[in-house]
Amino acid sequence: MSEFIGRDRKARRAYGFDEIALVPGEVTINPEEVDISFKLKDQKFEIPFLASAMDGVVDPKFAIAMGKLGGIAVLNLEGIYVRYADYETILDDIAKAPPEETTALVQKLYEEPIKEKLISQRIQDIKKAGVRAVVSSLPQKAERYGKIGEEAGMDCFVVQSTVTTVKHLSKSYQVTDFSKLCSTLKVPVILGNCVTYKVALELMETGCAGLLVGIGPGSACTTRGVLGLGVPQVTSIADCASAREVHFKKTGQYVAIIGDGGMSTGGDVCKAFACGADAVMVGSAFARTKEAPGRGYHWGMATPHANLPRGTRIRVGTTGSLEEILYGPARLDDGTQNLVGALRTCMGNVGAQNIRELQLTEIVIAPAIRTEGKLFQAAQRVGMGK
Amino acid sequence: MSEFIGRDRKARRAYGFDEIALVPGEVTINPEEVDISFKLKDQKFEIPFLASAMDGVVDPKFAIAMGKLGGIAVLNLEGIYVRYADYETILDDIAKAPPEETTALVQKLYEEPIKEKLISQRIQDIKKAGVRAVVSSLPQKAERYGKIGEEAGMDCFVVQSTVTTVKHLSKSYQVTDFSKLCSTLKVPVILGNCVTYKVALELMETGCAGLLVGIGPGSACTTRGVLGLGVPQVTSIADCASAREVHFKKTGQYVAIIGDGGMSTGGDVCKAFACGADAVMVGSAFARTKEAPGRGYHWGMATPHANLPRGTRIRVGTTGSLEEILYGPARLDDGTQNLVGALRTCMGNVGAQNIRELQLTEIVIAPAIRTEGKLFQAAQRVGMGK
Amino acid sequence: MSEFIGRDRKARRAYGFDEIALVPGEVTINPEEVDISFKLKDQKFEIPFLASAMDGVVDPKFAIAMGKLGGIAVLNLEGIYVRYADYETILDDIAKAPPEETTALVQKLYEEPIKEKLISQRIQDIKKAGVRAVVSSLPQKAERYGKIGEEAGMDCFVVQSTVTTVKHLSKSYQVTDFSKLCSTLKVPVILGNCVTYKVALELMETGCAGLLVGIGPGSACTTRGVLGLGVPQVTSIADCASAREVHFKKTGQYVAIIGDGGMSTGGDVCKAFACGADAVMVGSAFARTKEAPGRGYHWGMATPHANLPRGTRIRVGTTGSLEEILYGPARLDDGTQNLVGALRTCMGNVGAQNIRELQLTEIVIAPAIRTEGKLFQAAQRVGMGK
Amino acid sequence: MSEFIGRDRKARRAYGFDEIALVPGEVTINPEEVDISFKLKDQKFEIPFLASAMDGVVDPKFAIAMGKLGGIAVLNLEGIYVRYADYETILDDIAKAPPEETTALVQKLYEEPIKEKLISQRIQDIKKAGVRAVVSSLPQKAERYGKIGEEAGMDCFVVQSTVTTVKHLSKSYQVTDFSKLCSTLKVPVILGNCVTYKVALELMETGCAGLLVGIGPGSACTTRGVLGLGVPQVTSIADCASAREVHFKKTGQYVAIIGDGGMSTGGDVCKAFACGADAVMVGSAFARTKEAPGRGYHWGMATPHANLPRGTRIRVGTTGSLEEILYGPARLDDGTQNLVGALRTCMGNVGAQNIRELQLTEIVIAPAIRTEGKLFQAAQRVGMGK
Repeated sequence: MSEFIGRDRKARRAYGFDEIALVPGEVTINPEEVDISFKLKDQKFEIPFLASAMDGVVDPKFAIAMGKLGGIAVLNLEGIYVRYADYETILDDIAKAPPEETTALVQKLYEEPIKEKLISQRIQDIKKAGVRAVVSSLPQKAERYGKIGEEAGMDCFVVQSTVTTVKHLSKSYQVTDFSKLCSTLKVPVILGNCVTYKVALELMETGCAGLLVGIGPGSACTTRGVLGLGVPQVTSIADCASAREVHFKKTGQYVAIIGDGGMSTGGDVCKAFACGADAVMVGSAFARTKEAPGRGYHWGMATPHANLPRGTRIRVGTTGSLEEILYGPARLDDGTQNLVGALRTCMGNVGAQNIRELQLTEIVIAPAIRTEGKLFQAAQRVGMGK
Repeated sequence: MSEFIGRDRKARRAYGFDEIALVPGEVTINPEEVDISFKLKDQKFEIPFLASAMDGVVDPKFAIAMGKLGGIAVLNLEGIYVRYADYETILDDIAKAPPEETTALVQKLYEEPIKEKLISQRIQDIKKAGVRAVVSSLPQKAERYGKIGEEAGMDCFVVQSTVTTVKHLSKSYQVTDFSKLCSTLKVPVILGNCVTYKVALELMETGCAGLLVGIGPGSACTTRGVLGLGVPQVTSIADCASAREVHFKKTGQYVAIIGDGGMSTGGDVCKAFACGADAVMVGSAFARTKEAPGRGYHWGMATPHANLPRGTRIRVGTTGSLEEILYGPARLDDGTQNLVGALRTCMGNVGAQNIRELQLTEIVIAPAIRTEGKLFQAAQRVGMGK
Repeated sequence: MSEFIGRDRKARRAYGFDEIALVPGEVTINPEEVDISFKLKDQKFEIPFLASAMDGVVDPKFAIAMGKLGGIAVLNLEGIYVRYADYETILDDIAKAPPEETTALVQKLYEEPIKEKLISQRIQDIKKAGVRAVVSSLPQKAERYGKIGEEAGMDCFVVQSTVTTVKHLSKSYQVTDFSKLCSTLKVPVILGNCVTYKVALELMETGCAGLLVGIGPGSACTTRGVLGLGVPQVTSIADCASAREVHFKKTGQYVAIIGDGGMSTGGDVCKAFACGADAVMVGSAFARTKEAPGRGYHWGMATPHANLPRGTRIRVGTTGSLEEILYGPARLDDGTQNLVGALRTCMGNVGAQNIRELQLTEIVIAPAIRTEGKLFQAAQRVGMGK
Repeated sequence: MSEFIGRDRKARRAYGFDEIALVPGEVTINPEEVDISFKLKDQKFEIPFLASAMDGVVDPKFAIAMGKLGGIAVLNLEGIYVRYADYETILDDIAKAPPEETTALVQKLYEEPIKEKLISQRIQDIKKAGVRAVVSSLPQKAERYGKIGEEAGMDCFVVQSTVTTVKHLSKSYQVTDFSKLCSTLKVPVILGNCVTYKVALELMETGCAGLLVGIGPGSACTTRGVLGLGVPQVTSIADCASAREVHFKKTGQYVAIIGDGGMSTGGDVCKAFACGADAVMVGSAFARTKEAPGRGYHWGMATPHANLPRGTRIRVGTTGSLEEILYGPARLDDGTQNLVGALRTCMGNVGAQNIRELQLTEIVIAPAIRTEGKLFQAAQRVGMGK
């Protein structure tokens, strides 16, 4: 629905997770009996959860733990794990830095050059544990790192930047050819991020296996404040899911839509699937696990940006083990634990046998439950922080 | 009204209490002269108020007090009153637990098995006081507990779960047949919770006497945050009331619509009736009475859930006697006291002679009165909590 | 514009002051040259401002000060000024009461019977100062007090209750006949409060001179929270102004629409006129004057209600003289001072020569300026209150 | 889109920056390669940023620094720099005044008469540094000061008042003839502020080079609260940009639309261009620079208003050098630094080669990112302020 925001200017209304809710079904199902598996081309995963390629969330050890629990953790090939052989003290430094010095420190630490040898080593460490290795790179480095990764045995390659399109213009550097990359690599490639129907469709035509959907919605990301850019997740996931259906009809290729960012609770995760996602990529929720390398802190990959840092280091705390966050039992009741249990219960309540059915469940536009309550919680957090 | 939330995805706009207000009538009536009685099949109650089947709200003593004052208190047959013969110390423990340990403690206390003998005894205690005994059970236990309850003399049976439908699928356990239950039991049966027209209609066809309407809106319930599920109360009550009218026209059976949850003030209660409710079920307001067993605390029945707890113990305080909360005089001016007086005054001001007329009164969509004021109050509560 | 809030239930969207803004005009005018006078039948007032009939705002001394400055202050004939001959200590007691005891104290103080002799005396005191005496009564007492007032020389009579209609039903008491009242009394009668087109039209047909418009919007009034009742002021003033135009065309009688409640700043006042008001009745702004009897406190006339008190004593502080609040210079920049200057400047900027032209000025629907800023202010007030 | 706000009263929906977001493009561009230059008639500027004509932002030294960095700083000819030869102690006094005395102090300091000799001197000081001198005046003084300015060598003249129209009515003073002014002066004239299509068109017909667009949206300005006046910036910029296109088609003259006020972050700035602006005028962001004369404070030009002060002195702090605020590197991640970098990155992401293309980029209506997050930040600022 488009409305006039000015005399000759129309804009479409876009929606975010806080503005919708799911409607209980006419049939309900025993939650234990629903199917929540996720497929990326020929690879099947037990649960449709990916951990974000952020240094406070995924290190090689976390990747192994996540893989053993059925999910996917993406290791970032721009991060400290490929810059420093011994990274534990670096993580300590970031965790201990006073708030006002963090951005500068992080900027400085990320100036250390990437070692290609470390890329191979990290991948091999993960493989040795019997877990699929999934790594990510910026588009500029994708050709080079993809080759190194494949040689080291990676199982899936994620090429990710804030805004990714097939057509990028530059006179000063070589632009990555995603079609060539997808056809050259033998492993499935996930591209992102994008938020619109048209870009999703163009990216799908490169032969990728999945798309990361989400620009600007994450809690450690301030793209919208700094750049004005962003499309709320409900609309962007629904639009890209439309592109998936059209592409599937035309080509027979099913490209996975992976909601990325802006999901802080089980409720948000359930809504992402209801909007059309096949899987979700989550950051903060996993940053809170005992296994997360961030020591209770979390920062975005735009934080170390030398010239235009976005997002900051956020204290998220450590609230449980990865197993508890994924499978419960929840010890907190705020929707940040037992994400798999929440998804199953939701599917049971709306009567969805699998994710494909959940993608079609009824949604209502509804104001956030209790603004006053949220205010109270926000205020309390401040009070409790003292 | 449906709107596009994505390219091929529509969602209907649903409304909550904070978004509406009632319009004063063209005729006004002396509040003392309006009729607020409530009928559940052949049973008539003086006032259309039910106290929630929550352990912090209703124990046998509270049920007696409520019955003597003309209302209905539902005793929960999954709660501590049927798990522990002597429950006062249990209530003390819950009230004294530090916040961070509450969920775990509550989970543990509810692991104590239910004693069927206690079910009979609690019902008989209430009956002995000359008050109608109304008890509730989960669907899974409804057949068994219904039988015990009826033998013990219960007057009304409530079968309640977060989301209740006629069609529930499970390969691993026996699904409750509500039609059979309603025809087997001699007492009126109330089923719930539901929020949609279609499910309400199907549940009415089982022969029940009343429906609990409300999923996710209560202050001690975080279903929407954890599961993404919920329909705001204005729309869900109005939709289920539509089902009631259709069912009544077709069958001659009038099934009571009982708004359950999300009402924290007299204003919310009045709006629930204006949306079509025949009665309201209230939790927090009654948790604040001197008669409430929670000692100033309140917790939902999903709080003790072993794997996916929702809602937490909330400090509500004790602000007056049950009689004051129901009939005044109000000593607070925030709408949480003298609920019956508020309902009568509202009916007088909109010119409704009885609840059926109130169900047709004019409503406006209107933003919450003073966002800034609410902010201030929320902030103050934090300040005052220190 | 009506929308479906449920399957068979429509509601109209109503607007409040926070949701609109005035559009600067194509022509602008020197603010000193606009006409802001106000007429109530044959009586002309220099400025279109009335001070609310609330005990914390208007005592006989305030009424005199307001009259000398060109405005109207309404003395309440249910208040302490007609209950106590010497009321200064009563005002001291209310100001000094601890917050938690205030409602009870106010309830008790208002149990003292009204002395009819004091009614006459208060009116005569005001008249002696050379100022017009305007007094108010509840409908039930209007016949009796109207007679006393007229004998004592009152210039205008206000008959006010929360919700006033021509048709009030009661079997237990005599209902006031407004047509008879208006034709019996020689002075102009103002009736209120009302908020809808139809009720406004019916009240106008009784022969009244003005209508008070506003139910539930004042800052010392919680009608909407307690009773669910209320129509935001933009819509209620615009609707009642429509009734005025229709009534004027039909009868040639121009009945003044007086916006009452919900205006806390000059901006709100200007918007009330732009929505169609001929005058505004303001409470809190005048409660802050040095002349106000409330000693920096303010309470609604529903606060002392014995059974269902609404609103509470609010600390508003004392920020300037009545002359400063009305005519400036403003010493605060929050819109609560120099209300006349604000109105003149606004009229100059939208290009309105007089109030009738201001009633037709362009309005936009616009979200409140800076939610974040307001949050900040709300938070700050709490911080500053410690 | 107009909606009924009352029975016979329609209002158009207007939008603000917080309600929209920009949509990433189908093509992306290397940010280093986009063109962000700005033209005002024949004068070309490297960057489309103007610093507001506010005394806490622009003194002669700041104007020189800004000019050397490619932007424009407007020196106010009503300010203290033309009232006091030695103004540093005045600035100290304002910075040191206790909050409750500030408005009164500022009012008093601005009573000192303007010295025309100082006008010439300030302009010459700026010119001597090799920088273009841009100065501003109220309409009443425009003829006189324009002449003095031109003699002193000014390069551009800004005539600014809260609400400016071609037709101003007054019986007591001579009204400025903008057409005459624009044709008399040899330098380009910028007029403002305005917010509507019709007034923008009429002002353009006077022959001006640019228009300031924005009434009521700035953070140091409370026009909307005090006067009820204001149009949110998205709609006002889009409407005035429409007028620019129409005027350009008709006359071949391209009049620059300069968004003024309400932009506190890079995101807001990017949105202003996307709505149709050719340049932006920013206050608070520059008030935070080391070069700003306000010593970490900021106040509006309506603050010293003798009778109706609006806006107050705000503590903004000093967060970096002007070069850092404009060109980075950002040391804060809240969008208030590296404004030029943010604009370039945004243009790269939406695929705009220049400002004209950015003016056509896709916009969505989207709720502010994370209300809860903003609440948290607001609450934190209070906590941190203690």
